[in-house]
Formats: sequence, structure tokens, C-alpha cells
Amino acid sequence: QLRSLNERKVLNVDTMNPNVKRIEYAVRGPIVQRAVQIEKELKEGVKKPFTEVIKANIGDAHAMGQKPITFFRQVIALCAYPDLLEDDKFPEDAKNRARRILQACGGGSLGAYSASSGIEVIRQDVAKYIEKRDSGIPSNPDDIYLSTGASDAIVTMLKLLTSGEGKTRTGVMISIPQYPLYSAALAELAAVQISYYLDEDKCWSLDVNELRRAVKAAREHCNPRALCIINPGNPTGQVQNRQCIEDVIRFAAEEHLFLMADEVYQDNVYMEGCQFHSFKKVLFEMGSEYSSVVELASFHSTSKCYMGECGFRGGYMEVINMDPDVKLQLTKLVSVQLCPSIPGQALLDLVVNPPQPDEPSYATFIKERTANLHILSEKAKMTEQVLNTVPGIHCNPVQGAMYTFPRLTLPEKAINAEQEQAPDMFYCMKLLEEMGICLVPGSGFGQRDGTYHFRMTILPATEKLKIVLEKIREFHKRFTEEFS
Amino acid sequence: QLRSLNERKVLNVDTMNPNVKRIEYAVRGPIVQRAVQIEKELKEGVKKPFTEVIKANIGDAHAMGQKPITFFRQVIALCAYPDLLEDDKFPEDAKNRARRILQACGGGSLGAYSASSGIEVIRQDVAKYIEKRDSGIPSNPDDIYLSTGASDAIVTMLKLLTSGEGKTRTGVMISIPQYPLYSAALAELAAVQISYYLDEDKCWSLDVNELRRAVKAAREHCNPRALCIINPGNPTGQVQNRQCIEDVIRFAAEEHLFLMADEVYQDNVYMEGCQFHSFKKVLFEMGSEYSSVVELASFHSTSKCYMGECGFRGGYMEVINMDPDVKLQLTKLVSVQLCPSIPGQALLDLVVNPPQPDEPSYATFIKERTANLHILSEKAKMTEQVLNTVPGIHCNPVQGAMYTFPRLTLPEKAINAEQEQAPDMFYCMKLLEEMGICLVPGSGFGQRDGTYHFRMTILPATEKLKIVLEKIREFHKRFTEEFS
Repeated sequence: QLRSLNERKVLNVDTMNPNVKRIEYAVRGPIVQRAVQIEKELKEGVKKPFTEVIKANIGDAHAMGQKPITFFRQVIALCAYPDLLEDDKFPEDAKNRARRILQACGGGSLGAYSASSGIEVIRQDVAKYIEKRDSGIPSNPDDIYLSTGASDAIVTMLKLLTSGEGKTRTGVMISIPQYPLYSAALAELAAVQISYYLDEDKCWSLDVNELRRAVKAAREHCNPRALCIINPGNPTGQVQNRQCIEDVIRFAAEEHLFLMADEVYQDNVYMEGCQFHSFKKVLFEMGSEYSSVVELASFHSTSKCYMGECGFRGGYMEVINMDPDVKLQLTKLVSVQLCPSIPGQALLDLVVNPPQPDEPSYATFIKERTANLHILSEKAKMTEQVLNTVPGIHCNPVQGAMYTFPRLTLPEKAINAEQEQAPDMFYCMKLLEEMGICLVPGSGFGQRDGTYHFRMTILPATEKLKIVLEKIREFHKRFTEEFS
Repeated sequence: QLRSLNERKVLNVDTMNPNVKRIEYAVRGPIVQRAVQIEKELKEGVKKPFTEVIKANIGDAHAMGQKPITFFRQVIALCAYPDLLEDDKFPEDAKNRARRILQACGGGSLGAYSASSGIEVIRQDVAKYIEKRDSGIPSNPDDIYLSTGASDAIVTMLKLLTSGEGKTRTGVMISIPQYPLYSAALAELAAVQISYYLDEDKCWSLDVNELRRAVKAAREHCNPRALCIINPGNPTGQVQNRQCIEDVIRFAAEEHLFLMADEVYQDNVYMEGCQFHSFKKVLFEMGSEYSSVVELASFHSTSKCYMGECGFRGGYMEVINMDPDVKLQLTKLVSVQLCPSIPGQALLDLVVNPPQPDEPSYATFIKERTANLHILSEKAKMTEQVLNTVPGIHCNPVQGAMYTFPRLTLPEKAINAEQEQAPDMFYCMKLLEEMGICLVPGSGFGQRDGTYHFRMTILPATEKLKIVLEKIREFHKRFTEEFS
């Protein structure tokens, strides 16, 4: 009666969820898996032309040596083990912050669940942070939903937006190049991806005419309902100017699209003349004709900026002009997973409510934050400069975020070398095998046909980043010669 | 060109994802929202027939006053703020554990991402824990996936299993009463819920004949592919005996079903003669005829047992006999959300690798763990005893887990009092308004037609639990009189 060993499993690649099969996520794809393997081989004593793998594939600042902000970690330690509140070694402001967070936790413990949208006091602090950031434009704590990193909230919003079948199926506009969380979530939800291209020749800027082209074409075969923007840009490192954001908002209003603004790099702006403008602020400054109509969700995270606390999985979203009945549905939906991690919520609270000028930890906090942002800024410049000295590599300025997405000129022979592999995957895999540098091929983010790129983070410590850039220069030269 | 204010929003209840609308999650449903409102009213000085709301709606031990395990929190504090490693106040074993965890973290920081399936050292520790628990039956770290609480992993498995349309759509068998995470996830995935009823008259035990009835009926309209078991039971508090587990495994093998064993209450067994048997262990003791064939995923969490660390959102699943190609897909799927919270992973590591007999923290750890479990055990007995003294309430023994699901005899007039509300919702809402006790109506978990229940946790502190039980007694008497 039992099935034989040869019989297929209940769950196999033919019976499993076909949407999951369609997902691609290059940031942790085959190249990263190979990098981990090579690291193991090195440990086992296998000889390689290098002694360590340098990973510049993922925006993981602490893994690349950036140190945590002292104040943040003091408060987390105090919250985790409140006996430390008796310890003289901790500054008073850290203790006050910890007491305030614990008071807002069930049973005064990080171990209790919170409300599904997050601890109320922290949602209030987030609202105050947004108000301050946006020059006093009001923010309502009831519009704030804390999340497990920004990814979680982004997927939740896309889930809410997805409905219909065939030609009425929800379409979502995402930039190309994009951060592959978006394409992965759309694949899983079987929503329609509507690609709009950023203009590489204009520093990866967004042109509303391209949005118009894309949405018009998409209306033939799906129901476009949302527009996703990443600003500052991932993987492309551009920072949108105010005019561009206004244009996008006007476009969303005209085309009846829900706006999703991924603003997790809001502190990561390096280039002189560039400035971060939140979609929320620009929307409200455009007057009530827009601010009372355009539906907007914007996302932030503890993982990027100057703190880089990816491992805590903290984040929030603010929803503007959301239908109250949909908000009830959203609250219900997030309640199924109970609540975001409480240590992550606590860390987010510190990000939105850091030490104030009259508090003892202020000076150290400012010093650490400034240093982290300054180093990132220097590395952004260095990356652009060095890569642009390599013949066959063209690199736009890294205006913000943590990445560069340079364009590669590849010889024809290299482009045709592997039928199974995208040419830039072939390039990056060779770079990994020969140099021990782990980057992600542009094909994992999307790019115009016939163009080739890689994404590289600017996060390795300055000395290591120099090595990375030098090795890329050397490799690119050799690669070009080998296939010419 | 812009739409008028009267025009409908892009995202409204008619355009939103219809699957999300179908979700119900009673544990955080209307009754809990009303409880939070009443708490606010009390704070504002509104007069009520009680001075505080006692919440027995959710398995949230710390919120109910249970204290964290000292060792766990010491290690978390050390990991969060490693300067404390120089502090004499911390025991050496806590420091060693913290150093070991930090060494396994990118850049030695809780702030780095881990591998998407979790930190390798921790997956190894989980595997060792399972081997020890299951009397030496081997566990492979490559079969372990760390998760954001057990809920996350359960949803991930259900997602993998869902495919097909119409009569070929995946059906998943879940117990009634059930924990509403299951019905919520199935609604969201548009998979088919196949209900099998637990036998209330036999202490909520599972009868394989009922499984046979349910799967046979379901094969008429869907494709049954998975069977979910919660043991010890939520909301019903039963503990399955070995024979029953064997029968279930045999049934799954015969019917070609993927087994999902939710074992988050594995330490919560109170009743003399009852014992926790893991599905994995029983499966392997049944011989290779079964152990080489039956596909199994089992789930565990940091949220329950003696530690009750819900807020850290730590958990894992072990997958047995999973198709290797599906495992690749699973790894890809979880990588989109990057990784589970690192503090949660660290806490899980302590749960699976607690202080050992030769370590300085052992005595305190054992004392705390024993005390927590002992108190739960006493409260389980007290709950059963007191409720069974109330005419019109029948309560099965709380053999394990953290809940009782007693049956209510309600007068006809009460059953017909509200057309819009399930009778037990009507009952629980009145109990909340009149007594300040927050329970969840049985209708939120499912029950046989014409029967009425509530779920109540045994978690309030002993003195409070006495008050809760006394108030329920008083209320039930009054309610019965009022509607007779």
C-alpha cells in the first residue's frame, strides 16, 4: 500500500508552488553560494590565487567591519537584561531610554508580543521623527506600521494591492535596474511586473516620459495599480531631485496609481548638491489637490544609513490617504504574524529618537554617526574615480545609497562564450574564481538589452575597497584581452 | 484631469486582494481590540465594574508576568554590547556563549545579516538538540531552517505546498479546533482547508477514522497534499500518545500526504502519564519503510515552553525527506527576506544549548526552568478543577500547552440573542464588558456546529488566574439566569 522509493515525493519541483519557482533573488544567488563554498575551500587549505573572499554583494555594513552605534547597543543591552539598570557604567540617557521602552513592553519585557502594528510609544516616536524630517508636516502614529525590516512591509503592501485575473490582474511599476525583492515579491504573488527604465546616460535619473510609455503599454495586458520608487537608488546610487519627485507624484495622481516610496537610504546622500526629499514632504508641499488624494506608502529600515543594523530586522512604513477599511484589513493581515521582533522595534525607536543635544551620549553619538557617513561618502567618491580609470568600465557618480552599478564593455567573444549564462554572470563568476571578489551581475537587477553591469557595494573597509577596485581593474584588463 | 475627492481610492475593499479579506485571526480579533479600548477608557477614568482588564487571550507568558531566564538575557546583553565581556558581573559560561555566537556573526555583530537559513553554528546546535531529544536519531544541520517564530516557517511550508486550480488545488488538513494561523495562511494562499475534528469526548484526541473521513470527502473537490498536527494541542491542550502518532504517520504514508508537526509546546506537558513524543522520533522508530518515505516538517519556537520569549521571534523547522530540488527552492524563497532576526537566532541557540551541569549558570537555569514549568502545571490543574465546578461548563484536562478550550452550555435565548454575532462571541464580549476578562470565543478556532467554547490561556499569575476563574463562574451563572 505504501509507495515505493522510486515513486515521486508529495512535494517535488513539479507539484510545488509554480510562483515560488519563478522567483529570482540575485543578491543571494548562485554567485554568493559559490563564494561561500570558496571560503570553505580556503579554510580547508585549498590553494587559490587569493587568500580571502571579499564580499561586496550585499548592503551589510557590520559584516564589512562598520561598528555599531554605542548608544544603540547600550540601550538594547539594558532592555535585554534590566539588572544592568543598576550599573554605573551606563550613561543616564541610555538608562532612561531603556526604561521608557521596557515600560511600553508587555510585562516590562522584550519577550512579550506587542500590538501587531508595533509598540504604540515607538509608533509615536516614528511619527515625531517624520514630522521633524519633513519640516513639521504632520504624521499620525495610526498611519505607522512597524515591520520586520523594510522588505516585510513592502511585500505586505504588494500583497494588499494584488487582485484580478488576466487583463485585470494588478500590475506594479518597478524601475530597471531594480532591487530584486520587488520582482521576487511580484513573482510570488503572480502580479504583473511593469518595467520602467532609469536613464543611465543621465546618472540613472527617472524620466516621467518613460513612466508614461511603460504604463501605456502595460494597460494593454494588465491593470497598473502601483508605482514603486527607490530613492536613493538601489542598485544605481542616484538621488532624485525635487522636481523629479513632483513629476512622479503628478504622474501617479493622473494615472491613478498607488505610490510606494522605498526610502531606506534616506541618510545616505554623499554628493554635493544632492539632497534627500521624502515623497511625503513633496506630496504635502504640492498642496491639498495632491496631498488629499494620492495614496502613498513609504518605507524605512534600521538596516542602512549610518547604523547598518541589518540583523535586528527593524523597519516601519507610513501610509498616507489609505482607505480606512483597507487599514483594518492591513492590521488584520499583519496580526497573523503576531508582531515584528521587539529588539528590532527597540532599535528602530533609537534610530528615530537618538540622543538629544542636552543628553550625555549626544557627543559620542554625533561623532560616530558623522564618521560612518563621512567614510561612506569618501568610499563613494573613490569607487567612482577608480572605476572610471578602467578602460571598458563606465561608472556614474554614487550620489547616495551604498552601491555602484557600473557599465561594462565586454568583448563579443566573451558575450558569446557561455550560452547558459548571462555574459555578466560569466564575468562575475570568473572574477570570483580568479580574484576572490564577490559582486552581483547586472542581469540580477535588470538592465537594457545588450548592456552589462555589476552591482558592487561601497561597504568594504577603505583599505579593502582599494584592493577590490585594484583587482577589478586588473581583472577587467585581463578579461578583455583574453576574449579579444 | 485629477480625480475628485469622491472618486474611489486606488486601493479600497473592492479592489484589494480578496484572499486577504477572507483571513480571520480571532486571537487578535474584535474582542481584543475592544479590550484595548476598554483599557484606554479605564486610564481616562471611565467607570467600569472592574479596575483592570485581564487578558487571557494569547499565549504571551512575559506579558502575564513570567520572568525571563536569567542566563538567556545575560548572553543577549553580552552579544548586543560586547564591552560587557570585560565585566566581572557576568558568569564565564554566559561570556563564552556570547563569544561563540558573535564569532559566528558577520563582523562579530548582531547587526550583520546571516545566511538566509540561519547562522550555521546555531543550525548545528539545533541539530544536536534534536538528536538528544530524540534519543540519538540523527539530525542534519542542512535540514534545519531558522525562522521568525514558528508562524513564519509554517506559512513558508504551506506556500511551497500550494499549487493547482479548481479540483487540483492543494488541500491541507487541519484540526478543528485549530490555531487560526493555519486557516489564515490557507485563506491568503487560496488553498483548500480540509477540516478534521478532534474528539472532545475523548479529551480532544485525534481519531484516524476521522482523518480518513475528511480526506475522502476532500478528494471530491481538491487535491489533499498536507496534514497539519499541533501537539501538544492549541487551543485544546491535549497531548498525543505514541500510538496515535504512529497511526497518523501511517495514514500520511498511505494517503501520500506531507506531514507538518507543530511542536512548539514540546516542553509544556503537565499531566501524569502524558509524555511528549516528537513526530520525527516516532517516524524513525517505525523503521525505514516509513522513515525513508514520509515527508515531514516539524516546527519549534522560542515563544512557548518554559522561556516564553515571544518578542524575540525565534524559531526553526526541520525538514525530513524533502526533495533536494525543493530544498533549493525553499532556500531561495527564504533568502528574499534576507534572514530571521539575529537576536532571535541567538536566543534560539540558548534554548537548544542551555547551561550544562558543569557550568556556573546551570543551577540557576534549572531552578528557573523548573519553577516556570511547575507553576504552569499547577495552573493547568487549577483551571480544569475550578471550571468543572461551574454548572454549564465542561473542561477537559489541560494535559499540555497553555490553553483550555472548555465547552459552554448556553441557554436558547442567548444563542438566538444576536443574529450578527456567534453565540460564543456574544458571551465573550459580555464577559469582557461586565467582568474585564478577555477570552477568545470558540468560533475563532472552529468547533462542531451547535457547540460553544472559549479559549483561555492558563498564563495569568496564580492569584490573577484565581480571580479570572472566579469571575467566569460568577458571570456564567448570571448569564445563564439572564437568558433562561
